[in-house]
Amino acid sequence: MDRNQLISLIKGKKSFLCVGLDSDLSKIPQHLLHYSDPVFEFNRSIIDATLPFTVAYKPNLAFYESRGAAGMLSLQKTMDYLGTFKDECFTIADAKRGDIGNTSTQYARAFFDKASSGYDFDAVTVAPYMGEDSVSPFLAFENKWVILLALTSNKGAFDFQTTEDTEGLKLFARVLKTSQEWGNSGNMMYVVGATRATMLAEIRQMVPDHFLLVPGVGAQGGSLAEVATYGMTKDCGLLVNASRSILFASGAGDFAEKAALEAGSMQKEMEQLMAEKGIL
Amino acid sequence: MDRNQLISLIKGKKSFLCVGLDSDLSKIPQHLLHYSDPVFEFNRSIIDATLPFTVAYKPNLAFYESRGAAGMLSLQKTMDYLGTFKDECFTIADAKRGDIGNTSTQYARAFFDKASSGYDFDAVTVAPYMGEDSVSPFLAFENKWVILLALTSNKGAFDFQTTEDTEGLKLFARVLKTSQEWGNSGNMMYVVGATRATMLAEIRQMVPDHFLLVPGVGAQGGSLAEVATYGMTKDCGLLVNASRSILFASGAGDFAEKAALEAGSMQKEMEQLMAEKGIL
Repeated sequence: MDRNQLISLIKGKKSFLCVGLDSDLSKIPQHLLHYSDPVFEFNRSIIDATLPFTVAYKPNLAFYESRGAAGMLSLQKTMDYLGTFKDECFTIADAKRGDIGNTSTQYARAFFDKASSGYDFDAVTVAPYMGEDSVSPFLAFENKWVILLALTSNKGAFDFQTTEDTEGLKLFARVLKTSQEWGNSGNMMYVVGATRATMLAEIRQMVPDHFLLVPGVGAQGGSLAEVATYGMTKDCGLLVNASRSILFASGAGDFAEKAALEAGSMQKEMEQLMAEKGIL
Repeated sequence: MDRNQLISLIKGKKSFLCVGLDSDLSKIPQHLLHYSDPVFEFNRSIIDATLPFTVAYKPNLAFYESRGAAGMLSLQKTMDYLGTFKDECFTIADAKRGDIGNTSTQYARAFFDKASSGYDFDAVTVAPYMGEDSVSPFLAFENKWVILLALTSNKGAFDFQTTEDTEGLKLFARVLKTSQEWGNSGNMMYVVGATRATMLAEIRQMVPDHFLLVPGVGAQGGSLAEVATYGMTKDCGLLVNASRSILFASGAGDFAEKAALEAGSMQKEMEQLMAEKGIL
């Protein structure tokens, strides 16, 4: 999916909601455990319930890899199912990959090259530590996206990401500055945690046009209104992720209805924020 | 495998060689393509040929993930096979993972918790960008290891890892300094590229006891003698990885014999370097 298609999708659905499929087998409703693939049944129900309100789905690879082959089968079936709604949602492999060039090329094939791996994600999250040649192999795929970690939502973000260098740039700002030479606003986005909303203004000055993937709203405590105030552009420029607050809105038989209510409520707030910005 | 067992293994085999299983389907000898799982047949032959000279095997996850379910099956069979030599080799998942705490816990299960994922690696490579809570979940597993990226062997290492902060520490040195509060020399190692051998002296001052996993000897051009000069400790303290130079020493029917010759030649050099250091 290219940038224009993504923007159209956002305007059409009046939403910039990304649903994170952190589908933990130990947390999904008990009654699903009778199915042969409970996680896929869970994901399918969540997707059906939230698709009208959602522009992106973001499977978190760790929750599938932790279950070995069974987990990877759940992921494959989930992605095949999302493939039937190809024009209706953007898909993100939340994988935090990154390695030397020839290895990153293999990771890019793992997420982007359906003929090789079975997966056809639109985007993958990438860690910047190893620099340009660890990122550029992902950018070689047309209409695919790198979503580079900049300032993450967790406590550990303060261990290295906010360390200031001799030129007065914090590491996350150095990543934003340097990586803009590797790609553009049509094939790169950045991860910026909602728990750092006030730093979004500073980040927006550095990357005025790039989309930001914003985790941390919901279970992690970030505010949607603050994210919009400091991060929204004329093209919206935001994908705000919620995982646990939607997936596990209810642990009972009404989990899908409750997920739809939660997603719908976020979409309503997003619609209003976009309208206030004059985007709709 | 704990630290003492690893040191005994190194002294017993008179080797600190790690063979990287970057088993690229497009590069393995043609005649193996007749097998139902060519990559596993290749790995098994490489393991059989190199085990006398090798203390660690390091499957590079990207080369398996890029082939989807078939690749993950090759990896599972390879790890099951290595499991039959459990006391004879240390196993490393070269995966460069790292995410917020609850996600890193899932990645740790993916590599360490055999009952959950089918995998029982001794160690996993982890990227430090997201800080302590992205690393500590891996350290919660007994007798398992985190191998944290410090200074990598690729060109992109100079994009961020060598940026100096206001206290005069380069980022990789900041990672070394800070992360020593998270673990110890019995459950953490660091990745330091052989192509940076002269910087090893500086690194050894900061982490005098930790094992270093050193890629970049062989195809990437690093020198084994230099690595030993600057990085070896009284416990050896090194695992030097070679991948392509061993795996693809020959592309023909004699690939395993040529791999054994190459691994044996490296072991001989390592034995001499250890003897010179008075370790044997």
